[in-house]
Amino acid sequence: MSAEKSRLDRQFEFCLEADKEKKILRRTLLSDGQTLENDAEHAWHAALMCVLLSEYANEPIDVLHTVSMLLIHDLVEIDAGDTYAYDESGNQSRRERELKAADRIFGILPQDQAKKLRELWEEFEAEETPEAKFAHAMDNIQPSMLNNSTGGKVWEENKIRLSQILKRNAVTPEGSEKLWDYSLNNFIIPNAENKKILIDSRIGGVPPQSSRGDTSVW
Amino acid sequence: MSAEKSRLDRQFEFCLEADKEKKILRRTLLSDGQTLENDAEHAWHAALMCVLLSEYANEPIDVLHTVSMLLIHDLVEIDAGDTYAYDESGNQSRRERELKAADRIFGILPQDQAKKLRELWEEFEAEETPEAKFAHAMDNIQPSMLNNSTGGKVWEENKIRLSQILKRNAVTPEGSEKLWDYSLNNFIIPNAENKKILIDSRIGGVPPQSSRGDTSVW
Repeated sequence: MSAEKSRLDRQFEFCLEADKEKKILRRTLLSDGQTLENDAEHAWHAALMCVLLSEYANEPIDVLHTVSMLLIHDLVEIDAGDTYAYDESGNQSRRERELKAADRIFGILPQDQAKKLRELWEEFEAEETPEAKFAHAMDNIQPSMLNNSTGGKVWEENKIRLSQILKRNAVTPEGSEKLWDYSLNNFIIPNAENKKILIDSRIGGVPPQSSRGDTSVW
Repeated sequence: MSAEKSRLDRQFEFCLEADKEKKILRRTLLSDGQTLENDAEHAWHAALMCVLLSEYANEPIDVLHTVSMLLIHDLVEIDAGDTYAYDESGNQSRRERELKAADRIFGILPQDQAKKLRELWEEFEAEETPEAKFAHAMDNIQPSMLNNSTGGKVWEENKIRLSQILKRNAVTPEGSEKLWDYSLNNFIIPNAENKKILIDSRIGGVPPQSSRGDTSVW
């Protein structure tokens, strides 16, 4: 091998670096209710869901572009760590930590691919394109699905409030109204009714109880 | 929710079932040299590598098709378990176990998607299309890259022979000559030279020593 790194050397160096994403733990439990999920597992799951659920995007999306975005969206956490969605102080410094990480990690790649992946990650972060909105819908619905599957254990243990979940999901209906409705009605509301999510908010400006009939919570 | 499952119910049931792939351990160690990789992590890594390395495919490939194949290629192992690539008796019963698993797991989906994913998995298994060949190249090179990163630990511990690695990689050069050359020269040969892989075979009919100059092994 020559002293200068070849294009393939750089690409494989990046591929090996990406392996470290498997060691970055999230706050979400797998459906076994025991094991913390890691970023690589989450990215795989969200990308798979994107392939299966893209028919519900509000606007037509480029599925490969969206799947690629999901595959790389958490790579910066190799350096910056996972910032829990509901950690307000952590989220204030998150952007700065992640920008530095993006410089280093995407910078391992050949220049053209470094630029492409950096732009893809920035597109995800900006939440503006139909693809970025749908990717965020997957990124948000996947943990709600898992949290519901464990009986709301993570929400309960972290004393999560409904307003926090609604705030985090602000962009979810912009990606897919139908999938947001499904997630809200099947994953979130039942856990609020069962007091696993603390109710401090109304949904859509309507007092929840008036839309849910005879349940005491709503 | 009505008694009959909706299309979305089936899709989310499948998405939740897929979570179990994160509990299926492989024989490969992560680059930390300590942690066994699971199927979901492997699928993510192989899909990411496909996005980054598709320029080296021998024939033009549909990248979304190939990435989708990689995302779902190990789902059958939720029921059938991981069969180590070098477990010969396990591999004799593998096909039967995996067919049964495919019936159950893909069958959770709405009929059109069940058919589509089943066909995608069968295409992967058949190793005939350019996409399936490239997917197998990723599926084979990803663990070689990791095994090399740990100094050949897994190959050494399992007393893996060079002939087994070459047999497993038979389709790899059909997916990408360039990536196979890279993997052979950077991940496999150095570990044979260091006696982490048992040498019982020649490469390409040429005695390896004649092509490698003054090393004692080749």
